[in-house]
Amino acid sequence: MANPSASTFDRLFDPKTVAVFGSVKRDKIGHQLISQLSSGGFRGSILAVNPKGESPEGYPEIPGFPDLEHTPSAPDLALIAVPAQFAEQVIESCGETGVPFAVVFTSGFSEIGNTEEEERLKNAAERYGVRLIGPNCAGIMDTAAALYASIEVRAVPGKTAFITQSGAVGGAVLALAKISGIGFSKFVSYGNRVDIGEVELLDYLDSDPHTEVIALYLESLQNGRAFMQAVRRVSRRKPVVIIKAGRSASGLRAASSHTGSLAGSDEIFAAMIRQSGALRVPGIEEMLDLCHGLTSLPRIAGNRLAVVTNSGGPGILTSDRAEELGLQVRESPEKLREQLAGFLPGNCAFANPIDLTVEGTREGYRRTLEAVLEAEYDGAIVINVATPFLDSAALARGIVEAAASQKHPKPVAAVFMAGEIVKQGIETLRRGGIPAFPTGERAAFVLSKMYEYFSSAGRTDSSEPGLTAGIEGAHLPFATDAPVPEPDAVAFLELEGFSFPAHRCISAAQQIPEAFRALGFPLVMKVVSPRILHKSDVGGVLLDLRDERQIQEAFADMARRFADRDFRAVMLYRQVTEGLEIIAGIKQDPAFGPVVLAGAGGVLTELLRDSAVRIAPFRREEAGDMLAGLKIDRMLAGYRGAAALDREALVELLVSLSRLAVRYPAIRELDFNPVFVQEEGIKIGDVRIIL
Amino acid sequence: MANPSASTFDRLFDPKTVAVFGSVKRDKIGHQLISQLSSGGFRGSILAVNPKGESPEGYPEIPGFPDLEHTPSAPDLALIAVPAQFAEQVIESCGETGVPFAVVFTSGFSEIGNTEEEERLKNAAERYGVRLIGPNCAGIMDTAAALYASIEVRAVPGKTAFITQSGAVGGAVLALAKISGIGFSKFVSYGNRVDIGEVELLDYLDSDPHTEVIALYLESLQNGRAFMQAVRRVSRRKPVVIIKAGRSASGLRAASSHTGSLAGSDEIFAAMIRQSGALRVPGIEEMLDLCHGLTSLPRIAGNRLAVVTNSGGPGILTSDRAEELGLQVRESPEKLREQLAGFLPGNCAFANPIDLTVEGTREGYRRTLEAVLEAEYDGAIVINVATPFLDSAALARGIVEAAASQKHPKPVAAVFMAGEIVKQGIETLRRGGIPAFPTGERAAFVLSKMYEYFSSAGRTDSSEPGLTAGIEGAHLPFATDAPVPEPDAVAFLELEGFSFPAHRCISAAQQIPEAFRALGFPLVMKVVSPRILHKSDVGGVLLDLRDERQIQEAFADMARRFADRDFRAVMLYRQVTEGLEIIAGIKQDPAFGPVVLAGAGGVLTELLRDSAVRIAPFRREEAGDMLAGLKIDRMLAGYRGAAALDREALVELLVSLSRLAVRYPAIRELDFNPVFVQEEGIKIGDVRIIL
Repeated sequence: MANPSASTFDRLFDPKTVAVFGSVKRDKIGHQLISQLSSGGFRGSILAVNPKGESPEGYPEIPGFPDLEHTPSAPDLALIAVPAQFAEQVIESCGETGVPFAVVFTSGFSEIGNTEEEERLKNAAERYGVRLIGPNCAGIMDTAAALYASIEVRAVPGKTAFITQSGAVGGAVLALAKISGIGFSKFVSYGNRVDIGEVELLDYLDSDPHTEVIALYLESLQNGRAFMQAVRRVSRRKPVVIIKAGRSASGLRAASSHTGSLAGSDEIFAAMIRQSGALRVPGIEEMLDLCHGLTSLPRIAGNRLAVVTNSGGPGILTSDRAEELGLQVRESPEKLREQLAGFLPGNCAFANPIDLTVEGTREGYRRTLEAVLEAEYDGAIVINVATPFLDSAALARGIVEAAASQKHPKPVAAVFMAGEIVKQGIETLRRGGIPAFPTGERAAFVLSKMYEYFSSAGRTDSSEPGLTAGIEGAHLPFATDAPVPEPDAVAFLELEGFSFPAHRCISAAQQIPEAFRALGFPLVMKVVSPRILHKSDVGGVLLDLRDERQIQEAFADMARRFADRDFRAVMLYRQVTEGLEIIAGIKQDPAFGPVVLAGAGGVLTELLRDSAVRIAPFRREEAGDMLAGLKIDRMLAGYRGAAALDREALVELLVSLSRLAVRYPAIRELDFNPVFVQEEGIKIGDVRIIL
Repeated sequence: MANPSASTFDRLFDPKTVAVFGSVKRDKIGHQLISQLSSGGFRGSILAVNPKGESPEGYPEIPGFPDLEHTPSAPDLALIAVPAQFAEQVIESCGETGVPFAVVFTSGFSEIGNTEEEERLKNAAERYGVRLIGPNCAGIMDTAAALYASIEVRAVPGKTAFITQSGAVGGAVLALAKISGIGFSKFVSYGNRVDIGEVELLDYLDSDPHTEVIALYLESLQNGRAFMQAVRRVSRRKPVVIIKAGRSASGLRAASSHTGSLAGSDEIFAAMIRQSGALRVPGIEEMLDLCHGLTSLPRIAGNRLAVVTNSGGPGILTSDRAEELGLQVRESPEKLREQLAGFLPGNCAFANPIDLTVEGTREGYRRTLEAVLEAEYDGAIVINVATPFLDSAALARGIVEAAASQKHPKPVAAVFMAGEIVKQGIETLRRGGIPAFPTGERAAFVLSKMYEYFSSAGRTDSSEPGLTAGIEGAHLPFATDAPVPEPDAVAFLELEGFSFPAHRCISAAQQIPEAFRALGFPLVMKVVSPRILHKSDVGGVLLDLRDERQIQEAFADMARRFADRDFRAVMLYRQVTEGLEIIAGIKQDPAFGPVVLAGAGGVLTELLRDSAVRIAPFRREEAGDMLAGLKIDRMLAGYRGAAALDREALVELLVSLSRLAVRYPAIRELDFNPVFVQEEGIKIGDVRIIL
């Protein structure tokens, strides 16, 4: 009845004894599991548990038992494929006999609305301390342990661990990977995730010696913040590659109904990816390509790419894609050209792409690659387009030799096009440890993502857990069951360090002379009333007040007009007339909690649709990155000869907002609209808080 | 010595006799060609022509001749693989004996800077009326004629004709296609293109009964305008799928040096694609996928897509990509849901994606697809994610049955994932005429491009040749060897129907009173001098002049300040203060000739980087489409409560500019900057013409 922590999933992935619960007649899932375990070469013992205590059809050597009480010893792992209504009972018996782990393949739970039975399953597991994968999942694999406890295609050994919410996507990935000879260390399909999910698995895989890269297919998250923290921790040492389904409206609809949980906004998910240092890919082909590159190539130190080819066209297509993806395909430096001219024929192109022409030889490839990797380039894509009359294997040998001779290895990705005629060449590359991709475009994608990973390695500290220490969960100084009056909101935010234009709260006419003297003009007057939310719409905002008489009249007028709408006071502000208008604020995301938004304000809001979001809290660096993603960042820098604006002050504001958001979780929404960014400093034009 | 026109390439692709020039020793290109022709099952006669008159090694049945004079009759097609310095001579002998077509494989011409030898080759062909493909090419194939006159992988028969500038890309495409069982009608690698190029081939293929789709790989164009016209003609009947390499800076650099010709701006190429109704794809995988879809699927009438799957995850990824590409994955209508609920188990998802779950059967697929295709959807993607224990072939049969039973066929694309375990299923689909794609994302791309093709079929008339009738090549009413003085430019453009603010040209002070009375105020004054190009920079523009004295003083001041810079006069304009600022103009593109540009003006120019370009001339429809692609189009429509602006007048202006551009080819550049678009009408604020 041990309750193993995340760090001890060892018996889950490397069990001595596995018990298969459920019918073991041919075509039943139980039988398929037996068949997979057995043909996968599992080294431990397999037991079958079913009411009649039958051995599986065709496997007389595997003993059958009617229940766990009759087995010689408690298994480490139960694979459960009984009908949904019996699953709870099986978990109870596992708990009673001390089985620490169970994988529940059975479907028919929350994915079809049967949350009640799922809840019972979950409670039973908790009660007995049995740790669960599933239900409604496709199982697990551990290639090092030769454990194939899954109904999907058996993975070949490799260095990528693949965790998937969808069993079918898992199956498709494994089958596609097999075609390309891409292997896995572990595979986990966790289905409805009543217990063990992506967070614990990430932490476990972080220290798994067989795993160098972790890939995930996600539709929804268990706990967005915990996931983000886990990815941030892990991705410093091992790349985390993520497919998040549900980017579009219909995809999101399907993801939500499919997993029965909230998939959340894709924009905020994208922020999580940036802030945690994960790598996002759109689909499974890209995921496999990237894992292939990450597990077989050395670190890429910069984004300068050399393209070496024996054919112009594919070299150009590769350059096109590489530059679109942020890599640089710079012209060869003079020294390199001279070097190349020393051994390549004169009809070759030396500029980069470097084109050896169809007459490129093993020696040509080897010497060119060696020269290129010694030059300023950070990595290379080598392309060989074959005809039926070309010996691809020889060219592959040249490439392998060049890569092997590097003192400080740089990544070399190969593209051998295409089909039967390059099979020998690709096999030679594989044996030499050089990954081969079907097209140069796909290789360029891989190197661009690797560059993203290695260049952001330092950046992921920017919102580390330490940031939140001591600031979480404070109480707001006002009632949380009513709209926050503007004077209270402004007073509170000033104490928190936010900067408003000079102002006074005026509840009686005799306060006006002092206020006018203190504030100067022009002034803005805004009505204060708990019953008026949209002040402008009802004439509750007056601009450009320039003398005392005007102000007295305006005050009297507002007091009269809003007498029957709980008129309390007016706020008088010194009017801000200068600066770029920005919108900044806080929102609560259902998956990731408090987030901070910033974007173009004023007339540009709708025109530019220019906004950025980050999960709070974060440091200055992240706030700067957030602004760098906005179109209006050009205006902050001093646009068309205008003076530069105080971008640093805006960065400070965003960082402060991010801390405020975490400190006061009761703030459901907060808007500064607009914030005026001036040449020196910023001024908040208006604030709205919703609790 | 016939000089066949484009319509008689029949003997090129279906020759009775083929002569191979060049060494026919093993490993030589001549020998490879013999081997390809022979194993490809060529039904005509093959001759070898080489100095010793040798038969090819291993092919004693193929006669060898020392020259054409000794052959029994003149061949229809010469395949030339002799060294570059002998190519001219071979062409001459072809010409003298009446060989109508030659394909020159030999390299070492302009692609390595040897333009002189290439010029001699070209001249010889012209002199003798021999039509040439190449040099520096990979040859041609015609699968219907069993002609494999190429060194590349032999294509299987199919309905796509593939024309490629790069032989290697051609080879890669053919090899990749073979893996997926995709076939071709014809293949042409035209290399350096001294004679027959993409334009003539397009016209020929337009009426080729074996060809339904034409695919091109291009790096540069022979004649942009002629190509555009050809694509426009052909694409009304047959889709034209284009890869244009050289989108990026480095790609463009490589494309230009590789082909020795100007590749041209990618933005204008993109305009050509839009205006001609072609389909652009980024790379060869996308090209093959799309040709596969276009040659095997019926027309798609709209963009409403149904996704039918046996697994949630891949269905979601497919929806995501489909919506990103402009397809709609709408929720199933109530009626369809009821229908589905009548025969599918309750745990299936009916919303779209429609998820049959892993228990989906042949009957389930068949009935679901039938119901979906009868509902409001315009096409469907059907996904089957297999496990090793699922009979994919049965599901494939269900899909084939449903597609076959349609009275009004809609496209059904299949995705069977993945590997060995779905091979049977994919074979069943192939026999049933249903294309299978490796992922749903790729199938979504294909359907989105098919929708682009079929929905734009009407649009491509918008700039038909008739538009230019009678307007081309007029002479400008001023000297073309000096900058055009502003008064002359304005007078000329007013005659052409363009509308400027009220104005006077003032060369003497006594003209001012009348001008002031006629124009009203405020006024703008601009210096007129052939020596001043940038008037604002030297204080040659004065704004907001409001009385006669001010104007007199300003005139005197300008006359004095610019006395030594050939002061001629000033222009006085009524100042325009209202309206949205737009930039519009004409430029000459080296590949496509006159083009029209439009974009955001004033302070938004740099911020939005918002511009569009179209090849002139064009109709209102195209101008409207051009504006629709601009961000500021939202402002034209009446932005944030402002009144709508006169978009129609701007459309007229662009159409007029496009006609002007064609009428006066001597205009190298013309800028209206800004044009003020007002609630009624537009006003041109400034004009500059460069001849």
